[in-house]
Amino acid sequence: MAIGLVIGRDENERKKMSSYIQEWMDSLLAQDPQLDLRLYPNLGDINEIDFIVVLNAPTGIFKEFTHVKAILTLTAGVDSLLSDNSLLPHIPIVRIEDPFMADDICQYALTYVLQYMKQVEHWHNLQKHHDWDRRVPFVFSSKTIGVMGLGYLGKRVAVTLSQLGFTVNGWSQSPKEIPGVTVYTGQDQFIDFLQHTDIAVCLLPLTLNTRDILNKNTFSHLKKGAHIINMGRGEQLVEEDLLAALDSGQLTGATLDVFRQEPLPKDHLFWDHPKIIVTPHIASITNPRTAAVQVVENIKRMQKSEEPIGKVDLTQGY
Amino acid sequence: MAIGLVIGRDENERKKMSSYIQEWMDSLLAQDPQLDLRLYPNLGDINEIDFIVVLNAPTGIFKEFTHVKAILTLTAGVDSLLSDNSLLPHIPIVRIEDPFMADDICQYALTYVLQYMKQVEHWHNLQKHHDWDRRVPFVFSSKTIGVMGLGYLGKRVAVTLSQLGFTVNGWSQSPKEIPGVTVYTGQDQFIDFLQHTDIAVCLLPLTLNTRDILNKNTFSHLKKGAHIINMGRGEQLVEEDLLAALDSGQLTGATLDVFRQEPLPKDHLFWDHPKIIVTPHIASITNPRTAAVQVVENIKRMQKSEEPIGKVDLTQGY
Repeated sequence: MAIGLVIGRDENERKKMSSYIQEWMDSLLAQDPQLDLRLYPNLGDINEIDFIVVLNAPTGIFKEFTHVKAILTLTAGVDSLLSDNSLLPHIPIVRIEDPFMADDICQYALTYVLQYMKQVEHWHNLQKHHDWDRRVPFVFSSKTIGVMGLGYLGKRVAVTLSQLGFTVNGWSQSPKEIPGVTVYTGQDQFIDFLQHTDIAVCLLPLTLNTRDILNKNTFSHLKKGAHIINMGRGEQLVEEDLLAALDSGQLTGATLDVFRQEPLPKDHLFWDHPKIIVTPHIASITNPRTAAVQVVENIKRMQKSEEPIGKVDLTQGY
Repeated sequence: MAIGLVIGRDENERKKMSSYIQEWMDSLLAQDPQLDLRLYPNLGDINEIDFIVVLNAPTGIFKEFTHVKAILTLTAGVDSLLSDNSLLPHIPIVRIEDPFMADDICQYALTYVLQYMKQVEHWHNLQKHHDWDRRVPFVFSSKTIGVMGLGYLGKRVAVTLSQLGFTVNGWSQSPKEIPGVTVYTGQDQFIDFLQHTDIAVCLLPLTLNTRDILNKNTFSHLKKGAHIINMGRGEQLVEEDLLAALDSGQLTGATLDVFRQEPLPKDHLFWDHPKIIVTPHIASITNPRTAAVQVVENIKRMQKSEEPIGKVDLTQGY
């Protein structure tokens, strides 16, 4: 059994990522030193490859791999991979579901939810003026957090926020049961969900249904003065609609980790906007050391014809 | 049965706090409209008073209350009450343990722990320079949080941080078992605890043993570049030692919610210090609506000669 490791769009990117690629090689071999691991483009006889492990793979390469048992991606989001037309429909795709990555995502969501809920900026401004004023602009129990997307990561975020004492709602395509979280389902309940939301945390996968979902119409249904946190994909946010909603006061702030164009262009309006927090897509960066455990586990499961963890539903697109 | 409600040091303070006092009256009566609630100083016949409920009570008033069954305080910290020489040693003191207050405390601790762990300032500085640099200064798994004090509030904070994926140690006077948290106990293990700590979160009660505990010697044993968060009492921090440790680089930051003198004087050095975050003792403010539930519950328990929740150990001082 051989495994092909494909990281980087082209030779240039592979060069830049060389130490990260090496970390992946080392981490996978640390899980099983017997692995016949081959690094793209030096895959040898392509018919010997049983699994391909990919991260930002070059577009159009998948047609050749007619015999692989699965494609394993090293990211939680699979939208970019799924847009590759060379994918063969009979080959399953398996996404990473690393608990450490979930910790990272959850910590990021909490950091910026708390930034708003605990009014860090308000206290900071008082400090600047040496002002000991203990009055709180609002109490946390008066605000509701709405988590958009209740998959592996969204569910974890919703549950954690709820355990901290916050009122948490969630919205998802399919019905879910999550203790402590009120779940709204599907298009029918989307507006109702929005109307209860003071902070919208987007953890949706990018699909045809969720592209541009953070738009003018969506913002208009959120509670007046709401805040949005986008940890999904840049393509889910209509940038000019966000700017207009911040200008009008319908939204009071946005925290963005993902963008339509990454890196965010140097002259983009978001950088200097006083109501926008920009972070450079760091909510979660896959850590080879922890993620390799699951990759190798999934390969072993599939070799024994068992179901892998994180299999992508190709009809849903996530 | 009558209950005396004593809020405010003197008439002046009582005037300022009048709407807060009214909120307490309303909240207690909402729990039980039959309560014979009497507001200090109009207590009527003092021998009819069975319980006194206090918040910043005037010093020296307790000698008279020889017949009360207990003193219930509306704060989590009892140091200020216990310093009153008029307390009668045979009368039990019961502290508030309100789960909503615990949420508040926990949220505050998380907000400022995450501020540091998720490097909010670092990303903010990159944003100012339109700099898309995804390298993280450190990964969260390389840092250890040390919670000082594992009482009702400290334990909750330690468990929550541990569930978020952080490495958490705790230090406490008496041995404790907390899932996911390595507990160090007593004076013997204090230095060992400090040597493992990157962020020290102080939630200790103020006692003779903990006064001035955040001092030069303590700081010198923390990991180089550590951060401290003081949510205990101002008297636990030696202010000039903190300034020196920040100057030398032994500490890189401090988040302070409590101070030796409150309100923090207008000309205090902490206000403008670039490495100090000041908040005006807002980590938790007792909310009458939620706390009244427990006060009335405790009164009912004691009337039935049952043990109240949050009874203070007078020999320990907390």
